[in-house]
Amino acid sequence: MIYPKSLENLIEFYKKLPGIGEKSAERMALATLDLPIEQIEDASTNLLEAKNNLKPCKICGHITDKDICPICSDDDRNKNIICVLEDSKSVFTFEKIGNFKGVYHVLGGLISPTEGIGYEDINLSSLLDRVEKLEHPELILALKSTIEGETTTLFIKKILENKEVIISRLSYGIPMGADIDYMDTITLDKALDDRKQIS
Amino acid sequence: MIYPKSLENLIEFYKKLPGIGEKSAERMALATLDLPIEQIEDASTNLLEAKNNLKPCKICGHITDKDICPICSDDDRNKNIICVLEDSKSVFTFEKIGNFKGVYHVLGGLISPTEGIGYEDINLSSLLDRVEKLEHPELILALKSTIEGETTTLFIKKILENKEVIISRLSYGIPMGADIDYMDTITLDKALDDRKQIS
Repeated sequence: MIYPKSLENLIEFYKKLPGIGEKSAERMALATLDLPIEQIEDASTNLLEAKNNLKPCKICGHITDKDICPICSDDDRNKNIICVLEDSKSVFTFEKIGNFKGVYHVLGGLISPTEGIGYEDINLSSLLDRVEKLEHPELILALKSTIEGETTTLFIKKILENKEVIISRLSYGIPMGADIDYMDTITLDKALDDRKQIS
Repeated sequence: MIYPKSLENLIEFYKKLPGIGEKSAERMALATLDLPIEQIEDASTNLLEAKNNLKPCKICGHITDKDICPICSDDDRNKNIICVLEDSKSVFTFEKIGNFKGVYHVLGGLISPTEGIGYEDINLSSLLDRVEKLEHPELILALKSTIEGETTTLFIKKILENKEVIISRLSYGIPMGADIDYMDTITLDKALDDRKQIS
């Protein structure tokens, strides 16, 4: 065995995290050992705390350390506008923009027939319950433009077609600052479809 | 605050590690929460264990959970051949090759006049002590080809010039499989200097 046992364990732990290979894990583990003992103790305690305290918000499914997340319990947010996202990571991204004043609904996955993930496997029925209770609900479906994302978007649109609810999706198009000639044809095609009149 | 406190702490911890930015740290922290509780408990315990148990080998300075590392205490290794390396990471890399049957000496840094790191700040005097005790010592200096690496190499060569010791350095040259026309001129120049006759 090349590594001392506890270093090996640390490397193996880091390798479980996304995007971390053997070499990065080794580098991170050695860097960890260089941190002051107080920071290591804090990290050790916090790992358990995070795992034990964080759970999905009972309303929107976003990760939180309360029963109801700060967004859902914020009286200044418009509860009638629900932005539907795949995961909590996307909520953080939206919150960093800081412009959206509605609330969220985190699906925790996307419908995927090929992977056997059906609508009942994701956090969808609670979305319908939420919509039912609102007077003028508006849904913004902000799911990625893969087959799974499109399937989920279409499914949500379908089950809500008899309800009084405004449904939109994010626009497709050229990312800001990107060169047109470097764009793939599907994106260009979508950007053409979604073109906006210049007023 | 966008993140729940314990998630924020976890993200801040990961951001202290090399090569981990905001976005990766966030992704890693969320992935951490998806790990089973047993793995989190193990990681939490192991973090402290690693920090408390791992220390430099009393002979070579390589990181170990014993007083003397397994390499220095291995009777099958040739104690007369010492490969001098900057850090423990390099020892692991050499051990993965598996061909080197000598022992190591980890400097834990390189001499750097610009950063004010002198020979007394790195693990050098113990190297001289080791060399003194050997009958036919051979040193392989495997330090990187930066100013700091070269300075350290030259310094070691200098202080040992009156001793009976064979000193070599790794060869410089073209990395295996690399295109000649993509090589920088300094490397090419070194490869020319270090050229080997084909026998």
